[in-house]
Amino acid sequence: MEKLLIINSGSSSLKFKLLVMPEEKELADGLVDRIGIAGSKIKIKYGDGKKYEQAEEIPDHQVAVDRLTFLLKDLGIVQELTEITGVGHRVVAGGEYFKGSVVVDDEVIKHIDEIADMAPLHNPANLMGIKAFKKILPDAFAVASFDTAFHQTMPAVNYMYSTPYEWYQDYSVRRYGAHGISHQYVSQLAADKLGKPVTDLKLITCHLGAGSSICAVKGGKSFDISMGFTPLTGLTMATRSGDVDPSLLGYIMEKLNINSMDEMLDILNHKSGLLGVSGISSDMRDLLEAKESGDKRASLAVDIFVKNVVKYIGEYIAEMGGVDGIVFTAGIGENSSPVRQLIMDRLAYLGIKYDAAKNDENFDGVISTPESQVAVLRLATNEELMIARDIMKLKAEA
Amino acid sequence: MEKLLIINSGSSSLKFKLLVMPEEKELADGLVDRIGIAGSKIKIKYGDGKKYEQAEEIPDHQVAVDRLTFLLKDLGIVQELTEITGVGHRVVAGGEYFKGSVVVDDEVIKHIDEIADMAPLHNPANLMGIKAFKKILPDAFAVASFDTAFHQTMPAVNYMYSTPYEWYQDYSVRRYGAHGISHQYVSQLAADKLGKPVTDLKLITCHLGAGSSICAVKGGKSFDISMGFTPLTGLTMATRSGDVDPSLLGYIMEKLNINSMDEMLDILNHKSGLLGVSGISSDMRDLLEAKESGDKRASLAVDIFVKNVVKYIGEYIAEMGGVDGIVFTAGIGENSSPVRQLIMDRLAYLGIKYDAAKNDENFDGVISTPESQVAVLRLATNEELMIARDIMKLKAEA
Repeated sequence: MEKLLIINSGSSSLKFKLLVMPEEKELADGLVDRIGIAGSKIKIKYGDGKKYEQAEEIPDHQVAVDRLTFLLKDLGIVQELTEITGVGHRVVAGGEYFKGSVVVDDEVIKHIDEIADMAPLHNPANLMGIKAFKKILPDAFAVASFDTAFHQTMPAVNYMYSTPYEWYQDYSVRRYGAHGISHQYVSQLAADKLGKPVTDLKLITCHLGAGSSICAVKGGKSFDISMGFTPLTGLTMATRSGDVDPSLLGYIMEKLNINSMDEMLDILNHKSGLLGVSGISSDMRDLLEAKESGDKRASLAVDIFVKNVVKYIGEYIAEMGGVDGIVFTAGIGENSSPVRQLIMDRLAYLGIKYDAAKNDENFDGVISTPESQVAVLRLATNEELMIARDIMKLKAEA
Repeated sequence: MEKLLIINSGSSSLKFKLLVMPEEKELADGLVDRIGIAGSKIKIKYGDGKKYEQAEEIPDHQVAVDRLTFLLKDLGIVQELTEITGVGHRVVAGGEYFKGSVVVDDEVIKHIDEIADMAPLHNPANLMGIKAFKKILPDAFAVASFDTAFHQTMPAVNYMYSTPYEWYQDYSVRRYGAHGISHQYVSQLAADKLGKPVTDLKLITCHLGAGSSICAVKGGKSFDISMGFTPLTGLTMATRSGDVDPSLLGYIMEKLNINSMDEMLDILNHKSGLLGVSGISSDMRDLLEAKESGDKRASLAVDIFVKNVVKYIGEYIAEMGGVDGIVFTAGIGENSSPVRQLIMDRLAYLGIKYDAAKNDENFDGVISTPESQVAVLRLATNEELMIARDIMKLKAEA
């Protein structure tokens, strides 16, 4: 039995889950929020429904990690920190260098750092988490798992942009995608639920949350992914624009007197998407409610989101030459039965038939009927479990 | 019988066709090339295979039009200029204001001028043509036809970007598309060839040339189009990038020390696409040849092009909930049987079966077999004829 701590370290937050392996049991989860910002807070859920929540000053990631590990012991979640035999770190950008999870060493840290200019907001924060845990749990088996790694199997025809080839050769400009850990996890789970080897299946996995992406998974491998060089593009997201015409950047920068590309990309990342279109909220639940009340822009935002999902599903069916199963996961994918319904209704032409009751109750598993010509699944993603499995695998090989 | 002159006036060239209507017969076509640049030239084909070609100094559009009209008379193509009863002008950007072809008046000229900042290279050149002909053929019935007009029937869910809504309200940022005259022409012709009313059909028209776009034509109306705010995006083109992640613009501008957005967009418009990927040519014929000889980058460029077409076809099938016919037109679409074959082979999952002989010989019409579950057509586009028909319609209404 091993206790593994899985970490998602962002620029101002640190999320964690503590798992028992190989039992795949969850001991605790929680987060340290607003690190280095006024109003820092620690929240931990553990045991059978116990909760710890405390506002306190957390100036940096090292303090966050110190406090978190102290509390794990203090709350009796572990008796000794040495029980934690492994730590898994989720890293956003792995470039072309990382094609799977790896044991963290100096070389790995150096490479994550080098790739940072492709994910300037995320990789440095991921590294802070890695370094802080290295100090406090120096003997734990540390592993880095990359959101991009699963997509390294994509063929060049799908990852290359039609920009000057030198941009790829000299500056690594290509499609990297994201959410790879989630897409890999749910595609394996979908194959299990369908009782078929994943290597025999053409799946389309829809990770729909605040960030959203759709992946074409062919024979268990990522074949194409909607996110691009960065997680800005692809689907309409909570506040991200998804695909746009780059020409409009120059046009709008002139109209609005925006002088820097950073400012422009900030609008596309944080003030666009569902929020930008609706003008009222980035949260799908709010928009569905406003749509019901007749709000036209909220309605348009929902429709654009649905259309985007339908569009990418169509695209990947064509690219793979068919599809056996479509998977919905993540915040919206798992919990919004109205959105799944809108999407499935538009896919009726594929011969998709679904069990309305199962869809309504967010049934975990196959929600299409036996007559459906394409299986549809609603599955809870579990990126932490996927990372924990990778730690177990790497430990066994070590 | 009417003689109508159809004009496509670019920044440094002026193309024309002289048509007899309603017979739809071509009397002459040609171009004035390199206007205002060293090496200007006039080329005219007329009669039964006659050709006129002459290098001479053409400093501006007015001189181009003067020389052209002089030659039409001098070569005996017309006896008097007054025989030319109508002039049709192709205009690139019509914004949301122009939803169809219109009779040119001062108001129309004003609006084309106002929209110019959305098409800074094209609309001013189109206007130069309009004004020059107004002087030399003041009594001809002048009509403007817009490449964007056909797409004005798109629903908002398909034309809106997920950017701040105010960008649409205040600055008209949306998807406009292009090649509308061609998509409209071939969709009508396809319906004729299939012997069905266009209003009953779901068609996907692939205009594949130096500039390429794909249109979802539902019931005879444009439902979606691959080009966006400008003709930069959508498919990979001869030198245009098609869809890219805007984040990479900032990244590359820093790496390459590019200081202006104009310079950046110039690379995406003129040094990307097939040329950028292959590094050897923007011409599909060269790339197919190089691919045969084992050139990897040429091969990749061809594959990316094909994948893009397949991707958009899949997307529009999903958006329309099915497809009755797929149409190939324009330079590559009409003349490259290998490219059509590569595309159709990847679409075999749709139950598409084609007549290899008809495909090889560029047969004008249906190239799928009777058993094919989706009809495939190869059709010669004729934008000038489409404009001439619009002139006739507007004249009848005038």
